[in-house]
Amino acid sequence: MLTDEYFMEIALGLADEAAAEGEIPVGALVVCRNRIIGKARNQTEQLNDVTAHAEMIAITAATQHLGGKYLTDCTLYVTLEPCVMCAGALYWAQISRLVIAADDPKRGYSRHSAPILHPKTRVETGVMADESRALLTKFFRQLRT
Amino acid sequence: MLTDEYFMEIALGLADEAAAEGEIPVGALVVCRNRIIGKARNQTEQLNDVTAHAEMIAITAATQHLGGKYLTDCTLYVTLEPCVMCAGALYWAQISRLVIAADDPKRGYSRHSAPILHPKTRVETGVMADESRALLTKFFRQLRT
Repeated sequence: MLTDEYFMEIALGLADEAAAEGEIPVGALVVCRNRIIGKARNQTEQLNDVTAHAEMIAITAATQHLGGKYLTDCTLYVTLEPCVMCAGALYWAQISRLVIAADDPKRGYSRHSAPILHPKTRVETGVMADESRALLTKFFRQLRT
Repeated sequence: MLTDEYFMEIALGLADEAAAEGEIPVGALVVCRNRIIGKARNQTEQLNDVTAHAEMIAITAATQHLGGKYLTDCTLYVTLEPCVMCAGALYWAQISRLVIAADDPKRGYSRHSAPILHPKTRVETGVMADESRALLTKFFRQLRT
């Protein structure tokens, strides 16, 4: 059994790739029975598309791989707490488990008191949060200089 | 100046096309200065993708057309109230105006008390709602038989 840290490290690598392309550093993976079936980095700038968050692309890739719309036996690893759009997509996908590195007090879905995720989705936060926050802080510091 | 009903009728035509393909009948248009710059029907079944709601595809098409991420001078016409995912995408796109035909008391974004849309987005509901509801009712009636 591979650990959450193992998969989150790969997601952090994707976030780092995003930063190198001038994108806000966020990476996401969908894992099903220890296999990565979808992975993506944030590409909103590159694709000129507000819907091109890492989670959205990873969900689409995973469902294409499975040939089905639902991710009921899967875990999504993401380096930053999903926004409302991505949490809404995870609701539709009925993802089993969501593992988050850093929280997002400004744009994260959990700011909303009403539940947005599917009732069956288990959530874990804070897995390699410091590493994710370090990437984000470095990115925004470079943007300002 | 073309009317809201003019554009919503086109969105209803797209919803009808979705129904003919076995998809929940929802259609969406993005209109900018009286020109349609994005249009789509729900394609979740066909594409095996929970993110393939009409609104999401229309937003992506419109931003591709404009070459920019924001839809600040645009109106999105949609035949059914957007879900949380789509409302979250409309937030990021900063759409100026959202015109809805039928409401969705079960899955619509407005069930949530906290605001999900961008504060600058003006919303109008009930434009050709009866026509949209008739399409949805017919579709779900046929599904059950």
